[in-house]
Amino acid sequence: MSYTLQQLSEKLNGELQGKASKKIINVAEIQNAGTRDLSFLANPKYIKFIESTKAGALIVGKDFKEEYPNLIKVDNPNLAFSKAISLFRPSPANLKPGIHKTAVISKTAILGSDIYIGPNVVVEDDAVIENNSIVYANTYIGNHARIGAGTIIKPNVTIYHECVLGKNCLIHAGTVIGADGYGFVRTDSNIIKIPQAGHVIIHDNVEIGSNCSIDRGTLGNTEIGKGTKLDNLIQIAHNVKIGEYCFITGQVGVAGSAEIGNMVTIAGQVGIVGHIKVGDRAILTGKSGITKDVAPGSIMFGFPAQESKIARREMAGIRTIPDIRKRLKNLEKKLKDKDKE
Amino acid sequence: MSYTLQQLSEKLNGELQGKASKKIINVAEIQNAGTRDLSFLANPKYIKFIESTKAGALIVGKDFKEEYPNLIKVDNPNLAFSKAISLFRPSPANLKPGIHKTAVISKTAILGSDIYIGPNVVVEDDAVIENNSIVYANTYIGNHARIGAGTIIKPNVTIYHECVLGKNCLIHAGTVIGADGYGFVRTDSNIIKIPQAGHVIIHDNVEIGSNCSIDRGTLGNTEIGKGTKLDNLIQIAHNVKIGEYCFITGQVGVAGSAEIGNMVTIAGQVGIVGHIKVGDRAILTGKSGITKDVAPGSIMFGFPAQESKIARREMAGIRTIPDIRKRLKNLEKKLKDKDKE
Amino acid sequence: MSYTLQQLSEKLNGELQGKASKKIINVAEIQNAGTRDLSFLANPKYIKFIESTKAGALIVGKDFKEEYPNLIKVDNPNLAFSKAISLFRPSPANLKPGIHKTAVISKTAILGSDIYIGPNVVVEDDAVIENNSIVYANTYIGNHARIGAGTIIKPNVTIYHECVLGKNCLIHAGTVIGADGYGFVRTDSNIIKIPQAGHVIIHDNVEIGSNCSIDRGTLGNTEIGKGTKLDNLIQIAHNVKIGEYCFITGQVGVAGSAEIGNMVTIAGQVGIVGHIKVGDRAILTGKSGITKDVAPGSIMFGFPAQESKIARREMAGIRTIPDIRKRLKNLEKKLKDKDKE
Repeated sequence: MSYTLQQLSEKLNGELQGKASKKIINVAEIQNAGTRDLSFLANPKYIKFIESTKAGALIVGKDFKEEYPNLIKVDNPNLAFSKAISLFRPSPANLKPGIHKTAVISKTAILGSDIYIGPNVVVEDDAVIENNSIVYANTYIGNHARIGAGTIIKPNVTIYHECVLGKNCLIHAGTVIGADGYGFVRTDSNIIKIPQAGHVIIHDNVEIGSNCSIDRGTLGNTEIGKGTKLDNLIQIAHNVKIGEYCFITGQVGVAGSAEIGNMVTIAGQVGIVGHIKVGDRAILTGKSGITKDVAPGSIMFGFPAQESKIARREMAGIRTIPDIRKRLKNLEKKLKDKDKE
Repeated sequence: MSYTLQQLSEKLNGELQGKASKKIINVAEIQNAGTRDLSFLANPKYIKFIESTKAGALIVGKDFKEEYPNLIKVDNPNLAFSKAISLFRPSPANLKPGIHKTAVISKTAILGSDIYIGPNVVVEDDAVIENNSIVYANTYIGNHARIGAGTIIKPNVTIYHECVLGKNCLIHAGTVIGADGYGFVRTDSNIIKIPQAGHVIIHDNVEIGSNCSIDRGTLGNTEIGKGTKLDNLIQIAHNVKIGEYCFITGQVGVAGSAEIGNMVTIAGQVGIVGHIKVGDRAILTGKSGITKDVAPGSIMFGFPAQESKIARREMAGIRTIPDIRKRLKNLEKKLKDKDKE
Repeated sequence: MSYTLQQLSEKLNGELQGKASKKIINVAEIQNAGTRDLSFLANPKYIKFIESTKAGALIVGKDFKEEYPNLIKVDNPNLAFSKAISLFRPSPANLKPGIHKTAVISKTAILGSDIYIGPNVVVEDDAVIENNSIVYANTYIGNHARIGAGTIIKPNVTIYHECVLGKNCLIHAGTVIGADGYGFVRTDSNIIKIPQAGHVIIHDNVEIGSNCSIDRGTLGNTEIGKGTKLDNLIQIAHNVKIGEYCFITGQVGVAGSAEIGNMVTIAGQVGIVGHIKVGDRAILTGKSGITKDVAPGSIMFGFPAQESKIARREMAGIRTIPDIRKRLKNLEKKLKDKDKE
């Protein structure tokens, strides 16, 4: 696969500065790019590489000021580079529809057209798999579960009974959807399990990374809104409601019945206690522990988390303690000296 | 399924205030309940919903003071509501005993009566599965492992060789029991693996959530006591001993050889270092990092964790730093003015 | 299996102090050892057990000063005891090579000699499994993936397409290698997925615990260096490079494009942000949040992490706030009194 810079600039809807006829044969990271590779610059951390990179051309933002032989200027360099990757490295051909002979599929399951079901997949009674879905090897789909059209489920996934996945979702390997929520009552000498009789609803275009645990609701459902993207090793507890188009990154934990708004960003290893609300477009920075409602648009930091500005001011305050102690000592000495006068 | 309030109040062992003949057809959360649903109030956070709920009746504690048309007063509303869920939503009929024809079971494995073994389950040599156990699809049971009577293992679980599960346990999907403990010795130019020759013992009535990792012991065993309940994505390292009737919630990590007492509560994302002891009935609050022995009954908070009272006092202290700096400046100015006098 | 102390001392390359003819029949932890067991003392925390242990003999360091009837003194007690475990508890006999009849193996896959492939394993097109490898039941190996000679993969593992594992690796159950990195671009009304077109390279002698998630690179590869050992439930994000002979313990998360040097030690629940570098032999203590480059050999602590000495000094500073407030009050009073004079 190869393109001229002219062709690329048109496909990426950019302004070309440089040699239109130059041939580009691949995409690469800026620090590894060769003279016939296209790369990009979006994160300011990487500007230092502009001195040393051998990239044949760079995709950059419209406000890019540095000099470089060949540039394609675009509105959103990340997005344009993402398109460029697809041009040079088309995704592997789709699996041919078909049901592997080792798959174990209940007679009462309902299968759509043009679906792929891999080896050793188990589909239980009354489950529904809609058109064009792909279910990879060794995955389990419980009874009455429903997989929306065009959804892809990778190997070794477990979908418990009654859980519902929307259209065009992508679920990575090892993820478990619909295990019992963690609901127990302690009595004097025992612990009683609360039945977990709800299920999980995943809306359209959701992506869930590998080895996540999304628990079923107690009565109502655990719900993940349209277009939300989860990374790996995330726990979503029972009855949690997550809005649309959120980013939830690795190892985040959300406790029972918490409600997360739309377009919220949750960075790695954040913990959110149960029964609270996080407003739309809030940003929860890495490792924060969210213990109270968060207003829409807030940036939260620390544990227990506070508005980032306040938390950072407190942290700065802590750094002044040695100075405080020195000044205090000074004052004490001066006053003592005065007493002696 | 429907019951009158009179019937429900009897079944739940409660005192009815309201219309005994009223028919109830389902259970629901207070914020979603309709006029023919039964709901409950236990968490004070939800009292606000009493204004707006349409619930046909509420289960409440005996000391409940608010007005509401139909109330069933009980000693433990959580427990009573848990029973109510079972009344209206009986758990799905048990799987019919039987061994799926695709299961791969060693000739030397010992199988009890009335067990269910799902598709593609693998049971290795000399493993024992006791009466009435249920092993879901695609689960692996290693050689000499033992599954106690009435225990349920969900899909895609891995039980390594020699591990022992007690009676009436429930193990959720994706959990791994008995992988090698993390034992290595660093030498000058290499890292040597320490053989992990022990195994794991899970006592009766333990529940383990999805995607947990419970490692085998080095010599002795890793052990989880009777009735303890684990949430999801939890790591229990080699040689750890956990007592009876503990609560261990999501994403907790317990390092090697730590000992946890009975009835301990460990909140989400807590980390516990190796080789320490946590006393009976201690409470480790969310995200705490436990670095030293914890006395029985203590409430621990923060990282490194301290008694909650002390930790919270320190946090309050930090918030006074701006005030300290102001007062210090004041004093300095006053003293300077005095000098000028 | 039994050995005299004379024999053991020779095999472990140690100096014997005690009765050379004494027979030892097993290894055990010091607190559980009986009179015919060999135990060891390396962690100072366990010296207290020397009063009460019944161990027939102890492996100790050459500088060990306490009295005990039978001692084997060695340079590295951990290493020597590790060898002793192998003497008394030889690892289970290797699985007999062979391919289980239920395995589903593509005709275009290339299989080496003397390999074991368990029940329900799926090996996709053009995958390569080199000599002497062992792949346990229910594991999935994607197309063009490559498994190096002598590597062992436990049950329910997922290796995505094109991922490369070196020789003599050990991958525990439930781990996922090569799922898509978390790469998305937010636009005004949507979230666009960035293709994840790279893969994962695991070098020789790497061990990875259970339920880990190692994501594939976007363009280049995610890479784990020779001899590095990962514990359980770890996330390694796309494009991360990890050096050789590192220790990475439970529930650690490393964000995208971070670079970890050689012989780095990362303790439990540490989080590392993306696009930073951690120098060789650095030690990142438990629960730290690493937000900036770390110099080689540094010991880091806290969140945001600082050099351990600085962080601990700050923590000590916080504890002096009550004292500061008392002294401040004192000064204020004195000055007030002075004003009255």
